[in-house]
Amino acid sequence: MSESNATTEPLRVALLGCGTVGSSVARRLVEHPEEFSARVGRPLELVGVAVRDLDKPRDEAGLDRSLLTTDAEGLVTRADLVIELIGGIEPARSLILSAFEHGASVVTGNKALLGEDGPRLYEAASEAGVDLHFEAAVAGAIPLIRPMRESLAGDQVRRVMGIVNGTTNFILDKMDRTGADLADVLAEAQQLGYAEADPTADVEGHDAQAKAAILASLAFHTRVATSDVSCEGITAITSDDIRTVRRMGCVLKLLAICERVERPDGTAGVSARVHPTIVPRSHPLASVREAFNAVFVETELAGELMFYGPGAGADPTASAVLGDLVQAARHRVTGARGPGESAYAQLPVVPLGDVRTRYAIRVDVEDQPGVLARVATVFGDTGVSIESMIQGIRRSDDGLAPLTIATHEAAEGRLAETVERLRGLDEVGTVSSVLRMEGL
Amino acid sequence: MSESNATTEPLRVALLGCGTVGSSVARRLVEHPEEFSARVGRPLELVGVAVRDLDKPRDEAGLDRSLLTTDAEGLVTRADLVIELIGGIEPARSLILSAFEHGASVVTGNKALLGEDGPRLYEAASEAGVDLHFEAAVAGAIPLIRPMRESLAGDQVRRVMGIVNGTTNFILDKMDRTGADLADVLAEAQQLGYAEADPTADVEGHDAQAKAAILASLAFHTRVATSDVSCEGITAITSDDIRTVRRMGCVLKLLAICERVERPDGTAGVSARVHPTIVPRSHPLASVREAFNAVFVETELAGELMFYGPGAGADPTASAVLGDLVQAARHRVTGARGPGESAYAQLPVVPLGDVRTRYAIRVDVEDQPGVLARVATVFGDTGVSIESMIQGIRRSDDGLAPLTIATHEAAEGRLAETVERLRGLDEVGTVSSVLRMEGL
Repeated sequence: MSESNATTEPLRVALLGCGTVGSSVARRLVEHPEEFSARVGRPLELVGVAVRDLDKPRDEAGLDRSLLTTDAEGLVTRADLVIELIGGIEPARSLILSAFEHGASVVTGNKALLGEDGPRLYEAASEAGVDLHFEAAVAGAIPLIRPMRESLAGDQVRRVMGIVNGTTNFILDKMDRTGADLADVLAEAQQLGYAEADPTADVEGHDAQAKAAILASLAFHTRVATSDVSCEGITAITSDDIRTVRRMGCVLKLLAICERVERPDGTAGVSARVHPTIVPRSHPLASVREAFNAVFVETELAGELMFYGPGAGADPTASAVLGDLVQAARHRVTGARGPGESAYAQLPVVPLGDVRTRYAIRVDVEDQPGVLARVATVFGDTGVSIESMIQGIRRSDDGLAPLTIATHEAAEGRLAETVERLRGLDEVGTVSSVLRMEGL
Repeated sequence: MSESNATTEPLRVALLGCGTVGSSVARRLVEHPEEFSARVGRPLELVGVAVRDLDKPRDEAGLDRSLLTTDAEGLVTRADLVIELIGGIEPARSLILSAFEHGASVVTGNKALLGEDGPRLYEAASEAGVDLHFEAAVAGAIPLIRPMRESLAGDQVRRVMGIVNGTTNFILDKMDRTGADLADVLAEAQQLGYAEADPTADVEGHDAQAKAAILASLAFHTRVATSDVSCEGITAITSDDIRTVRRMGCVLKLLAICERVERPDGTAGVSARVHPTIVPRSHPLASVREAFNAVFVETELAGELMFYGPGAGADPTASAVLGDLVQAARHRVTGARGPGESAYAQLPVVPLGDVRTRYAIRVDVEDQPGVLARVATVFGDTGVSIESMIQGIRRSDDGLAPLTIATHEAAEGRLAETVERLRGLDEVGTVSSVLRMEGL
């Protein structure tokens, strides 16, 4: 019961940003001071909340409005613990660096900044001898960052594969269940608050891309930046794609995949990518519905682990932020330090062209004898092995029939060549989609 | 990349016990010294392995046999980090306490000891200013202890419910899939190495009971000992039970359930229990197959989280042990401390009689008019509300028909009274089983 011996000198907490997550964090801090005090060993005192507009109507029950300030720069200089929930690169980065300079530990959920400039933040925290925590940056409330940095620190991660963006999972799940088009489902998601007015970051995969960079960095003790992660969003996905995937007994998910791979020269490398992925319905990731997140971690010793939960939302994200806050505060009290950057392995990031996966290619072909053989010959010539070919019914409008070819594992580069040559065939009308398959 | 600046002075690691888990731990330490060195910031040196019998044939590839010793007491005095994998109460407890006295941090997977005497260990570690880690004690490789102690430290846990014993899950899963009897499936499990020669600790629920005590303690910041956890194993489960449960669209699982509950006087309490539980097939815990573990954690802010993975096995357990070892070693290097005991809440443990759950009661009744009414009246009199009654086909041998009554939520005490009165009815042959239901 050592942790209940709280001394009276409070640790000063500064909150930067007071949107839905920030409000939830502030509410909890103000409403349950005794709990934080007991868990930390010292009281936590919210000394200020930096906002852009003081006059914006707010509904933080119990939040003393005199705590609000527009002077974020000033606020970080008088705190022991800074919670950064502004998001984006600037001014978030400058404020975090300033917090470190003033000796404060930082808790952030800023995946964009971590993905772009993580090493600089780590370095500044290390120089200042303070903590940098970011559980909320990936998969919301799901404890994932801490397990990766600490629990699996004696193991070797082989692969991290997961649904880390709730908006796109909501959209793809809805398309799968209703057969509706992307545009209609996106509009519904926006109405329900699952997608933002400008949904670009989600549907183009950029949000998942930054998260993949963070996960790959931790998993492989290697610096992986957002720009190292190849990324394809869901904007090109049609209801035809979804139907085809259904017919294969599968479901389409936007996955972040980080793998330790063998490079052509036999040495180890890292692949990190985000793309729509065909997953068998029997795979646990297939049953992840609506805006939930789930991440598989495969390691040498532990085998396959799965983490599942709400990937976003004010309260779930606040849970992750507050867990980090308690951790950083405990370290403050005991003079301890959280883990720093672990990038000793520095494995090279493998270009997408060298990564091997399985593919499903959908083409529209003329419905006449010899076409399947012509198509199959292209695959034979490029060295991509076919697992199955499924021909659909000839359409009356253009006389073409859809043909779905599932391949065995092949290098991305070979596949691109195959698609190029398919496009050159007279018998092939269009190559309607090329989708990767995992977990089969 | 601060963690790659390893100084040369190694941290001395002592391993107590060299069974399958110990061998896996030793192998990893010996085979990948550079990895541990990079992750810790200093080399780890295995300075000794305490065993009972020096002459027992061992297959630890690469393990220098001169490291083996029968002098565990001497070994712990010359280590910075002690890994205890002997199990049981003594001599494990004395060795751990001695390690603390000599200033070593301890990593253990000893659920029996933690469940029986956890607070004493915490206290000794705290007095000595060293770490006590035990990720391997619950759910093997699945990071669960660290998320509970750290990631959710800013949240309030409402409920932890999970499959934490692989052996019984293997048995129940097999009974469900094959319709076989417990005895036959147990024999098979023993043959496959999923059950021990003496399966008592698993099938009687004692293993899950100790784990429930550990989880409840962490979840509710309250001291919960193994003896505080009410426990019912699976030995009484028949293939008839499994069949009945199947007909209900459900599956039977041995669950550890730890809940924050409201006591009759309106104050908060803790319930911790282990029992066979009817779970709907649509519930994620229903699809946990074979010897896998899965734990649901429901919190105020985060909502529902699930952790899934291998709950036992040499390598998975070694992964948890090594993660803790790296953590304890990092703390050693940076002069930091892991979290101590958090028992500030000290909520009272609620007796099973006051806990409210739903039940399925199977009775054999005479197949004649008025029987259902008589049975229903008993429930009405005791104030237990019936959700459904399903009557099966009359057996030719004794002329009785099975009747399954599913109830709404009721207090355990009321239920016991109901069962007692059912037994007194002339029309009721026997009460064949009383099973609890969750997740409906």
